[in-house]
Amino acid sequence: MNGKQAAGIQAVQEISDGMVVGLGTGTTVYYFLEALAEKVKLGLKLTGVATSQQTVELARKWGIPMKPLNSVQSIDLTIDGADEVSPDLDGIKGGGGALLYEKLVAVASKKRIWIVDARKTVKQLGAFPLPVEVIPFSWKQINRKLENRGLHPVLRTQKDGSPFLTDARHYILDLHLNTIENPSALANELDHLPGLVEHGLFLGMTDSVIIGYPDGHIERLERH
Amino acid sequence: MNGKQAAGIQAVQEISDGMVVGLGTGTTVYYFLEALAEKVKLGLKLTGVATSQQTVELARKWGIPMKPLNSVQSIDLTIDGADEVSPDLDGIKGGGGALLYEKLVAVASKKRIWIVDARKTVKQLGAFPLPVEVIPFSWKQINRKLENRGLHPVLRTQKDGSPFLTDARHYILDLHLNTIENPSALANELDHLPGLVEHGLFLGMTDSVIIGYPDGHIERLERH
Repeated sequence: MNGKQAAGIQAVQEISDGMVVGLGTGTTVYYFLEALAEKVKLGLKLTGVATSQQTVELARKWGIPMKPLNSVQSIDLTIDGADEVSPDLDGIKGGGGALLYEKLVAVASKKRIWIVDARKTVKQLGAFPLPVEVIPFSWKQINRKLENRGLHPVLRTQKDGSPFLTDARHYILDLHLNTIENPSALANELDHLPGLVEHGLFLGMTDSVIIGYPDGHIERLERH
Repeated sequence: MNGKQAAGIQAVQEISDGMVVGLGTGTTVYYFLEALAEKVKLGLKLTGVATSQQTVELARKWGIPMKPLNSVQSIDLTIDGADEVSPDLDGIKGGGGALLYEKLVAVASKKRIWIVDARKTVKQLGAFPLPVEVIPFSWKQINRKLENRGLHPVLRTQKDGSPFLTDARHYILDLHLNTIENPSALANELDHLPGLVEHGLFLGMTDSVIIGYPDGHIERLERH
């Protein structure tokens, strides 16, 4: 057992028969999907909506029934990971590169729970580089603009040095900020930048956080 | 001669030797490119930056030297069309589906001129349906949100009924608004919608407008 596994397994308790469930992306979600697949085998009925091609493939392999986001009216509950979570339940997401679809599934969801291991909880956001998804056509212009604003962007690349491509065929710039003094002001500024499709600041976008510890115990935070 | 041709030909006077020139998209820009190509044949040196695949192909055919936006530091002047222009030089663009790249080229430009025929000038924006470019993964969720806001979105389709795909492989929803009372409030709202990549409101994004009339005369408006 590790913290990710503890949180992932705990989250399965939240799923009840007939739900439309948003399925996040990443290593913690991997444990959740593994445990969810066991319940599906035992007869649990649900419809999954994936946030990435990676999760689509895992869910298919494990026999979890899936629909695309466009084919459902809304999502009852989404279980997703996060790269950093602040005490007021704001977060940074996108370390795995799925931030755009994760945000689109989150805003279509009635309820949202993040599952994280204890190392993801921070006092202030920003030590984890903030991913922003950008239009390849003008990525250098956007990069220059972010540099001039002192936001220290770095193009995310693959092992062969070519740009990392998201599922929506955009690039990612990781902003090395150390600390983010005012997340909502930064989010607002990034929202207005042409060519910046989405950013990894998820503010007020989860209802609960399940934190897993290495000894297997969990802690739960609720939005008030 | 028609109004589009009059405006397009006039705009060539703005191009001087050595410039990096943003090249818009559409029928009015077609006349500009045709006239520009003549000057290139006569020895004018310039570097073009296209706002669409359509313009790339025209420029290549006519021997206008081109570079992608990522390969230039900035653009000296961009000549583009518009679907509607208000008296204070705000506009709606995107009828041809190139709004995203047109906006990215516009924000990278030191100076911008729109060329339009006289029918494009309006007292108030909104009779022309406002295009918004959206992420296909969640277009139905976005469409529903825009419907609930009373913005009357209609998915743009091709002749065979399949969705129109932009050069960046997104969809377009056309908002049938009739009039837009407060363009900047609407632009701000649309900027914040996850999955909405860009909108066709170009506010404060041109310096001059050259208006062509059917008799061949032109009129010029300047931002004050």
